[in-house]
Formats: sequence, C-alpha cells, structure tokens
Amino acid sequence: MKVVKFGGSSVANAEQISKIIDIVVSDADRRMVVVSAPGKRFSEDTKVTDLLIALGETVLAGDDYEPALEEVVGRYGEIRQELDLPETIIQTIRADLQGRIENRSSNDLQFMDTMKASGEDNNAKIIAEAFIKKGCPAKYVNPGAAGMLLSDEFGNAEVLPESFENLAKLKYEAEIIIFPGFFGCTKSGEVATFPRGGSDITGAILAAAVKAEVYENFTDVDSVCAMDPRIIDNPPAIDCMTYREMRELAYAGFGVFHDEAIIPAVHAEIPICIKNTNNPSAPGTMVVPSRKPELGSVVGISSADGFSAIYIDKYMMNREVGFGRRLLQILEDEGIPFEHTPSGIDNMSVILRTSTLSDKEAAVLSRIENELDPDKVVIDHGLSLVMVVGEGMHYTPGMAAKATEAFHASGVNLEMINQGASEISMMFAVKDTDRIIAIRSLGAAFFG
Amino acid sequence: MKVVKFGGSSVANAEQISKIIDIVVSDADRRMVVVSAPGKRFSEDTKVTDLLIALGETVLAGDDYEPALEEVVGRYGEIRQELDLPETIIQTIRADLQGRIENRSSNDLQFMDTMKASGEDNNAKIIAEAFIKKGCPAKYVNPGAAGMLLSDEFGNAEVLPESFENLAKLKYEAEIIIFPGFFGCTKSGEVATFPRGGSDITGAILAAAVKAEVYENFTDVDSVCAMDPRIIDNPPAIDCMTYREMRELAYAGFGVFHDEAIIPAVHAEIPICIKNTNNPSAPGTMVVPSRKPELGSVVGISSADGFSAIYIDKYMMNREVGFGRRLLQILEDEGIPFEHTPSGIDNMSVILRTSTLSDKEAAVLSRIENELDPDKVVIDHGLSLVMVVGEGMHYTPGMAAKATEAFHASGVNLEMINQGASEISMMFAVKDTDRIIAIRSLGAAFFG
Repeated sequence: MKVVKFGGSSVANAEQISKIIDIVVSDADRRMVVVSAPGKRFSEDTKVTDLLIALGETVLAGDDYEPALEEVVGRYGEIRQELDLPETIIQTIRADLQGRIENRSSNDLQFMDTMKASGEDNNAKIIAEAFIKKGCPAKYVNPGAAGMLLSDEFGNAEVLPESFENLAKLKYEAEIIIFPGFFGCTKSGEVATFPRGGSDITGAILAAAVKAEVYENFTDVDSVCAMDPRIIDNPPAIDCMTYREMRELAYAGFGVFHDEAIIPAVHAEIPICIKNTNNPSAPGTMVVPSRKPELGSVVGISSADGFSAIYIDKYMMNREVGFGRRLLQILEDEGIPFEHTPSGIDNMSVILRTSTLSDKEAAVLSRIENELDPDKVVIDHGLSLVMVVGEGMHYTPGMAAKATEAFHASGVNLEMINQGASEISMMFAVKDTDRIIAIRSLGAAFFG
Repeated sequence: MKVVKFGGSSVANAEQISKIIDIVVSDADRRMVVVSAPGKRFSEDTKVTDLLIALGETVLAGDDYEPALEEVVGRYGEIRQELDLPETIIQTIRADLQGRIENRSSNDLQFMDTMKASGEDNNAKIIAEAFIKKGCPAKYVNPGAAGMLLSDEFGNAEVLPESFENLAKLKYEAEIIIFPGFFGCTKSGEVATFPRGGSDITGAILAAAVKAEVYENFTDVDSVCAMDPRIIDNPPAIDCMTYREMRELAYAGFGVFHDEAIIPAVHAEIPICIKNTNNPSAPGTMVVPSRKPELGSVVGISSADGFSAIYIDKYMMNREVGFGRRLLQILEDEGIPFEHTPSGIDNMSVILRTSTLSDKEAAVLSRIENELDPDKVVIDHGLSLVMVVGEGMHYTPGMAAKATEAFHASGVNLEMINQGASEISMMFAVKDTDRIIAIRSLGAAFFG
C-alpha cells in the first residue's frame, strides 16, 4: 500500500486534478491520496488558503464578507465546470463555508483554523467526485471522523498518539481514500490545523498509521538536486538519500519539504519518494531510513546565508568549569536558538541565525561581558554555511582535503570548519560574498 | 629590571648554583632571582621536595623522623661543602627544620606546606650566601616578610591582590634579591604553598609586581621546539610566540611550564623568556603579549593522546531548545570538564580527556539516555588531538588545505576538524595509533 500526497500546485485546477487521477489509477498500490487546497494556477495567482485567510479576517473584522466568500467558491466552481461535475457540489461547498462562518467559535484562532481547513476539505470532496466520475471507486474521508486527533494548539497543532491506531483502520477500505491534508480535530471535536504546509504531515501520519510500503510526495520537480539549480546549471539528481542526509541538506537551503513534517514517517521508517506530478514516469528521489555507505560519495552540497558568529576569548577559559554551559544559558534565557558552538582552548564561538538575534544583540553581548568576564567578545555578521553531505564520508580518507583544496583553489577563505561531529557531513563557514563561488568550486570537485 | 627564575635542576648542586650566579651577574638588569628547591642531580635522584614530603609524613605518622631529616640536611650539606660556605648555615637549616616540626600546626595540610616550603626557603638562604661569597651583593628575602600574601587553601593557595603592591617595594632594594619560590604566607602568618611547580607562579607574581621588562624562566632546554623532539628529529626552535600561541600549544603536550603559573605575568603583559641554564648564550624563546601576525606562518604543532568523544544523535535535535545546555549541565553535575562540543544538525559531540571520565562513564551515558532521549549515544576512546598553531593563520587562505592534504597523503583519517573557533589554531582529532604519523606529515608540510 502506498500513501500518495499531492501539493497545492498538483490540485490547483481541473487539468492538474486529471493528472493526479491518472497517476493514482496507474498503480493499484496507491490506495490513499492526501490532497492540499488548490494552489496557484500561474505565478501571480492566489492560493485558496490565502483567500480563506482573507475571508476569515473579513468575518472577524465584521465587514461584508460575501465578495470574499464568492471568490473562494468561484475557484471551486471553475474546477467543477472543467471537470464537468454536478453543480450541486458547489452549493454544498458554499453552504459548508457559510456554516463555518455562522456557527463560528468565540475562539478566533479556532475559527481561523476552521476556515483554513475548508480549503483542503472541500477540495478533497471535489477530487473524490472527480475520481468517481472517471469510473474509479474513491471515497472522501473526513479526518475528524477517521480519528485524526490533534492537540488544541490551533494553527500549530500536534497529532495525538491514538490517531495512528484510529487511522490504521483505513487500510481496510475498499475504495481509494481521498483524505484532506493539513487538519484534524481536537478531542472535543473542533477543527485544528497543523503548522502551514501541513499536508506533508498528514501524509506522513497516514503512511505511518497504515505502515505504507512507501510515502509518495508529489511536487513539481523530477527529483531533488544535489546542488541548488539557482547556483549550478543542471546539477545532478539525487536518486536516493537517507533521512539524515536529507536533514543535513535541508538545514542549509534544500526546501523540498519541511523536515519536521515527515517525522511520523521517519519514526515508522517508511521510505519517502519525491516525485513530479507533471512527469510521473521520472523515478524521483527516494528518502530512506538507511543505505549502504558508499566510500567517497557525496549526495549533495547545500548552503545558506544569514548566519552570525559570536566569538569569545578568555585566557584559561578551558579550566573554567561551567563556562560553556553558562554561555548557552544566556542564549536560552534570551530565547535565542544557536546552531553550533565550536570551541578552542581559550575561546568559544556560537554560530546562530542572524534573524534570531533581531534586537537582542546588544543585550546578549552585554550579558556575556558582565556575566562571563571575557577578554574579548565580538560578533561577525554576513556568514554563510556550506554543507557537504554523504553517508560514508566519515570512512573515506581525503574528503576534507578535497573540499579544502577546492576552497583554496577558488580563493575562498574558510572562516570555520566543523567536521566530525556528524559522521555524514562537513560544515564550512564562509563569508556571504564567497558563497556562490564556494558552492561552484565544491560542485566541480565532487561532481566534476 | 629582569626577574629571573631557576628551576630545580638549575639549583640541584654547587656546580649548577655557580652557573646561575654567573648568569645573574652577567646582566646588571637581573635584580630578582627566584629559586626552587634542589632538584635531581642525576636521573634516579630524589628531589628535596620529595624528601621533605617523606619527612613530613614520617612526622605525622609519629615515627622516628631523624634519618629522614638528616637526609634533607645532607643534601644542603653537600651543596655547602662544594660551595665552601660556613658550616653554621647547615646548623641553621637543621634548626629551622626542627623548629617547623616541633612548632607544628594541628592542621596537617598546613604542616605539610611548612615542610615543603622549607625546600625553597633554605635553598634561597644558601644561594644568597653563595652570591655574597662570590662578591656579589645579594640578599635572601622571606616571602612572608615581603608581603607575598596567599589564601589559606593549603597546598593549592592563590595569591591575594594586595601582594602585588607589597612586593613592588622590592625593586628599590640595593642588593640582588634571592627569593624562594613556591610559597607565601596567609594573613594570619602561616606558610602556604602554591600548587606544585609553583616557583613559576612566584616568578610571574614578582615580575608583575615590579613591572619587570622581562621574566626570564631558566630551564634545561635552549628553547621551545616547534614540534615534540620525541616525535621529530631536530625540530625547529621557536624564537618568539604570543601568550595565546603558547596556550594553544601547551594544551596538547607542550610542557615547558604550567600555563596557569604565568597568569600574573600575562595579566601584566610582561614578556617571558625561556632560557637554558646550561647554555645561557642561546637566545631562548620569547613569549610575548602580541606580535604582528605573519601570513602563513605556523609557530608550532603539538599533540596529545588520551581523549574520548561522546557522540549523540537525535532527529530534529537542532530545534530542541536547551539541548546543548542540558548536556553540558549533566557533565558539570558529574564534575567532568569538557574540551570541545562540535555539533552538527542532529548531532552533538563532546570531546573530553579520558582520565576525567574515570568511573563515571556509565553514569554519564545513562543520564544522557534518560534525560535527553537521544536516538543514539556512543563513546569512542583512543583519540588524539593535534593542534596547528600560528598567529595570522586565520588570514591565510589554504592553511586547512595544506594540513588536510598532509593527513590524506600520509593515510591518516581525520576523525574531527575544528577550525575557526580560535583564529590562531586548527584542531584535528585522529586515532591514537595515527598520532605520530600525523605529526610527522604535518611537520613536513609546514616546516619542510
């Protein structure tokens, strides 16, 4: 059994929906289909979810919401017309939306969740009808009714453990399940949504619940690239990588899906396949629990800018018990997550995302000065992190030499090297201005 | 004004003491001489400090201590005889020791400090006589009388801040000051000693107090070597390095002096010169507050074995606020100092000295398992750290490439690289079994 998830651009209009029906029926193992709300049909288009947020806000403001409501209904109307489905479904959708508005909760967050969730929910109803019209036995399933129970953190809900057992029963359904992504309901029966992009989460939960042989995540790319195609022309495709390789790459700029979204699939060790709705015969990229490390193989190279480093010098620092812990405590108190803490003998650095510092920079530096009494504390902005990732890296001599030689040959000075903490990656820090050339020189070294 | 310190082997017998008198009188700026207790005269010899410890323990055990006392007195007797000093000085020393024993404190630690301190104290008295006999105006100064005030942590005392002002007055003395190292006295007038090796501390305090132009530390080597001579034949000498270069080198195996010992000199920015009592015309090694960084220059390469690494993997670790801080808290609770904490995205390592783990390894691993719920935690023993050190390193492209290429060419796999936390060093971890070959290959790369 395969769980298949389609993103917003794959279900944005009738043409795309026809493609996904073809994809699903072409493989009898594709038994569960998770769908998003209709996304953009063209680059300046507005996603239905954004239309729904605007509608909800109009309602909350007490303004006339009819035009906003009709804009949402119009999007479904266009899809219905092109798919030649009965008009009654649009009446049902309009009534559904009006019901959500009229019976709204006094909790504005919960109301907004109800409105946003309707995007996936009503799209799933239309898509189920489209399957049936094409002669394919399919069935819309309501997440709440199927037991997708969430915490009551509206807009940021988490799945409750009992959901997995509840949802496991879906594997016995005769029809293909059309399951709206992004939401579930609380124990008291109120609609609640995952963080945005949460259809990936829904798919991962279903895949884990039914112990799917694979979780297919359809997007609009043939596969994940080994390097950023905005930096490198025609980078090689990744056929297969492990979860942890994906995590290391995702850290620095690989935005295929939220790595948090797939946690349920990771815990259940379900392989994930990233495929293209518009080119389903391409093999895609597999993301698997483990694979045999290949000596010398690099799966991908990623990078991201926007990092800062706080450098602290203090003579005899390494004899001062608790110095590092107290430094991290200051950051934790100030609510600033850190990325890395490389340390020397008498120095310690903290690498963090510049955005997390926001207006706290002066306060943090002043607390470090006062509480840790350093000889020197400075902060550098404008750093990029570059990750070279691959299982087997740790067991292959010469990987660091190859990478550092590439940096040197291209005239890039290394601000920092962090290798060995992770056995599957090497991390380098360079100045933002050197990032592009650094990636290109590494690409040439590792992918030729 | 120069403060000059002579270690135990430089004052072990009359021949050595004659050398130090020649050294001191050859430079009119050498006005303050800090001396140790007589050290070993040959490799199987026993240091007077160890004889004194044995004597003190015999006294505390209530046993007959006369033979042990006579052994100590005998060492001074030999020196007196060879220097042809009046016999009365030996009577004075015997009476001094008997007085220390008979008037002993009920605090055993304080009594042992009194006994150990006599080694330096009585040697200073003899050496002052030897200077005078050679026609050189010199004067024994008692540390307590001169105002060297220490905390009452017997055996591990720290200097009190007012000592510097007290001792500054010594610069107005007409004679050359012969000052015993290693001890001072508490505010209530009891003798207290620094941690062992504390004559270096005494010299650094005096140098800081009188704002010496240089603090000359006489040992038995011509200069500090850029690499360990037990690993590399005829390594180059270091002419000059900064305090922080010295610290980075000392961290991994350079044992010229305790880096903690020279803190008072570092804070006062007094240059330190390491010279050879047996070859005083050799220029020695200067250790200075700062110097102009030379592009590409490596001052030294050091290494040490006996490190372990705890590796912790946890999916999504980098989103878990406080993970790193809680890990360090566990180590702090267990009294285990850590050396480095390199981290990846979903992993964090702690490098520590294996000796500090002792019998706590199982407890620490179990606390990490229970309190941090990692996906994996493993510990690796048998690691060596290798440091490549030089001011200016940070500003020189290609240093990392040169080093990693050397490792690779010699077939050494890098367990870890930590570069950039310190701007003056690169740190590498290798297996203990690779340490020698790693150092040799780096030596060939950086020193030819």
